[in-house]
Amino acid sequence: MATRKKLKFGAIIHGVGGNISAWRHPDIPSDASVSFPFYVRAAQKAEEGLFDLAFIADGLYINEKSIPHFLNRFEPITILSALAAATTKIGLVGTLSTSYSEPFTVARQFGSLDMISGGRAGWNVVTSPLEGSARNYGRTEHPSHDERYRIAEEYLKVTKGLWDSWEDDAFVRDKESGVFFDPAKMHRLNHKGTYFSVEGPLNIARSKQGQPVIFQAGSSESGKNLAAKEADAVFTGHESIEEAKAFYSDVKNRTVAYGRSRDDIVILPGIGPIIGSTEEEAERKYEEIANLVSIDKALDYLGRFFEHHDFSQYPLDEPFPDIGDLGSNSFRSGTDKIKRTAKEQGLTLRQVALRSATPRGPFVGTPEKIADLIQRWHEEEAADGFIVHSAFPRGLDDFVEQVVPILQRRGIYRTEYESDTLRGNLGVPIPPNRYAEERSRQAAR
Amino acid sequence: MATRKKLKFGAIIHGVGGNISAWRHPDIPSDASVSFPFYVRAAQKAEEGLFDLAFIADGLYINEKSIPHFLNRFEPITILSALAAATTKIGLVGTLSTSYSEPFTVARQFGSLDMISGGRAGWNVVTSPLEGSARNYGRTEHPSHDERYRIAEEYLKVTKGLWDSWEDDAFVRDKESGVFFDPAKMHRLNHKGTYFSVEGPLNIARSKQGQPVIFQAGSSESGKNLAAKEADAVFTGHESIEEAKAFYSDVKNRTVAYGRSRDDIVILPGIGPIIGSTEEEAERKYEEIANLVSIDKALDYLGRFFEHHDFSQYPLDEPFPDIGDLGSNSFRSGTDKIKRTAKEQGLTLRQVALRSATPRGPFVGTPEKIADLIQRWHEEEAADGFIVHSAFPRGLDDFVEQVVPILQRRGIYRTEYESDTLRGNLGVPIPPNRYAEERSRQAAR
Ligand SMILES: Cc1cc2nc3c(=O)[nH]c(=O)nc-3n(C[C@H](O)[C@H](O)[C@H](O)COP(=O)(O)O)c2cc1C
Ligand SMILES: Cc1cc2nc3c(=O)[nH]c(=O)nc-3n(C[C@H](O)[C@H](O)[C@H](O)COP(=O)(O)O)c2cc1C
Repeated sequence: MATRKKLKFGAIIHGVGGNISAWRHPDIPSDASVSFPFYVRAAQKAEEGLFDLAFIADGLYINEKSIPHFLNRFEPITILSALAAATTKIGLVGTLSTSYSEPFTVARQFGSLDMISGGRAGWNVVTSPLEGSARNYGRTEHPSHDERYRIAEEYLKVTKGLWDSWEDDAFVRDKESGVFFDPAKMHRLNHKGTYFSVEGPLNIARSKQGQPVIFQAGSSESGKNLAAKEADAVFTGHESIEEAKAFYSDVKNRTVAYGRSRDDIVILPGIGPIIGSTEEEAERKYEEIANLVSIDKALDYLGRFFEHHDFSQYPLDEPFPDIGDLGSNSFRSGTDKIKRTAKEQGLTLRQVALRSATPRGPFVGTPEKIADLIQRWHEEEAADGFIVHSAFPRGLDDFVEQVVPILQRRGIYRTEYESDTLRGNLGVPIPPNRYAEERSRQAAR
Repeated sequence: MATRKKLKFGAIIHGVGGNISAWRHPDIPSDASVSFPFYVRAAQKAEEGLFDLAFIADGLYINEKSIPHFLNRFEPITILSALAAATTKIGLVGTLSTSYSEPFTVARQFGSLDMISGGRAGWNVVTSPLEGSARNYGRTEHPSHDERYRIAEEYLKVTKGLWDSWEDDAFVRDKESGVFFDPAKMHRLNHKGTYFSVEGPLNIARSKQGQPVIFQAGSSESGKNLAAKEADAVFTGHESIEEAKAFYSDVKNRTVAYGRSRDDIVILPGIGPIIGSTEEEAERKYEEIANLVSIDKALDYLGRFFEHHDFSQYPLDEPFPDIGDLGSNSFRSGTDKIKRTAKEQGLTLRQVALRSATPRGPFVGTPEKIADLIQRWHEEEAADGFIVHSAFPRGLDDFVEQVVPILQRRGIYRTEYESDTLRGNLGVPIPPNRYAEERSRQAAR
């Protein structure tokens, strides 16, 4: 394991998150999802913990049954840009959908965030699971799961192409001669594809890290393939180390199959550590928050993944109902797993709903125990690092103050930032400018 | 004039601007258009001068002949959000085009900027003059001038509607009962129009100032009507006080004709003050920068307004050529004025190009002289205030340090911010939430 990259960490900042009713806890600020000072404090705490990145999730549709902290929350591009000014080293990664946006604008916004932050931007490319999104964007229908991924693939091709519009030495800025740039180093993409047609050039140059880091969070077949082909990092979620290991080797193998190196992509499962000075204290903390969730809210929460299906129509204490194909066009990998687990373990609707709405995972216990688990997942190649989501009172603080020092003492986590760019810290390569690369290939001939 | 609102000021921050070759001046940083520290310093200087707002311009198409600081510049939403974290009182206004964007996304981004900044956001609604924009957005053609304004009008209706999705007291957040929000105070827009169809609700609430401030910068008939109907503020540009007065009373009268008050809209011409300790020094400063512009670059600059027309094909020292209708579908009000002035004053092509590329305006001289002019324009109702663009070395600093104190002594400019919202400082009304207003109207019956 000597050659293993050190652990990577991200922090999901999402206001009143944790679980859907965590906002009711007396120590959790219930307006955090729109409190800029809350976001600044969390990002700075993660930076104090030498985290690779802060992560902002997103969605394009809400209704009466949505999760409270989704109803009223900051939009990712804006909050990440604001956090760029309040931090200096930590990466800034946000979700943005390829199904309901324009590549020219999105390339610009992430390119600009990358420039403002000095090479710290990352984009979590999602395809929008929620069907209602179509109605907020004047579409008659939400594209199918497969089509969304085909759109995403072409979309990424366009944005990556636009980001290379200017070679790194294009801007000469010679005051004497009046030459501002070298026109031979400005490039038009002239993309004409199935879904997009974009001329270029983009009106922003590459940052210190070349291009924003691409994250992918879909775990379906299409999602894994897109990640293997195009992404620098993968977000995922697992309930056990076995599941995580299988996913890890699957995605690494696919990446190699696309002609890339295993190290070109980092795999980061989400964890929600709950830390206590004893096992009992940690369990008590979990229960405190879990008990805030009513069964009604849990059913609403579950329904969202299944195209806002109304689960209150079924008996609670009978086996999870047969709902056919429902959910496969939205959060496919997630809904497949829920159905499969319910069947395999013979769960009732109540159990399924509560498990979904009050997620626990294995990372509950003392700082030592959590450090042990993290080390094991890392060593056994279940993860290159983790995305920590923890809105439990002082959850992120506890992790940074109590778990991080243990990992540092064990030599598996950095004691200072290796770089001031996100790529530098994650250890993923800077993509060379395609035109400069072509030029040097030609010169070598 | 006792009832006159005090002067308002905005600062355009645009990196290496000033004129198209100002970046060549030895004291001007030539990479300023992508230097975040430069933007922070400028915004903080404007805030020190108690300016109402910092302004970020924008465009969606570049080519080899574009203005240097347009080739590589920050995107407005990102840079304004970053500046929100670096300032506390100044308004943050950015340009965004209604011709190439989605109202749900734009409403969210400005809404989120408004929330992050504590009620300091403003949106300069433009329709995109440059035809090439279409090719960056997969469109077969750039909509006509008139259609662009029809789109803009419907677009504004949608975004304003989305911003009212949540009544101001919708978020109850009662930890005891578990009630996060009052569903009766969440509203779907259900807009179905000619160009857009948007369900809602928006996933962000109103800020302290209700809604972002709407700016409008078009001066054509359609532009003035849109401003009078929908805008809180107008950007404009004039070469003389007579022209400015005519525009001012025209727009105020149109505003009243739409059933609004004259005070509901503020009119802010752009000025480029050049300040010297003597008249001669100021003139010398102007010449220093003007002389950096070559005739070739001036012709390129002129061409951009006329759909990138190539003016190098005409003799330089003969009357401005007859180019027919060219330009009327892009910067219409501007190109009309150029043609008219050339004819009336019998200008040659060289004169027209140099005048455009090395704008001067009347605001050149000592601090006292500039303060006199500002006072006169204000008193005679040519302006409610000004948008200062000044990339001359220390131009903004000179204005803040030398002109502002004179205006303050004369009692026509604030000595401290009246408010911490942009609406509060501009003195434009907070739009009531439409649903809350309707509710109280019904209750009154
Ligand atoms: C850790 C993690 C974070 C995610 N974050 C988002 C998000 O912020 N917004 C979103 O729309 N989807 C998010 N997703 C959902 C995925 O993008 C994807 O839409 C979903 O998993 C269904 O696609 P799939 O069938 O390919 O897995 C996330 C998924 C995971 C595992
Ligand atoms: C002070 C001022 C600032 C402007 N800023 C922008 C801008 O940032 N981006 C843009 O595309 N157009 C900008 N414009 C152009 C106008 O939005 C408009 O497109 C142009 O004036 C043509 O429209 P009209 O014929 O209605 O005047 C600006 C105009 C003025 C007067």
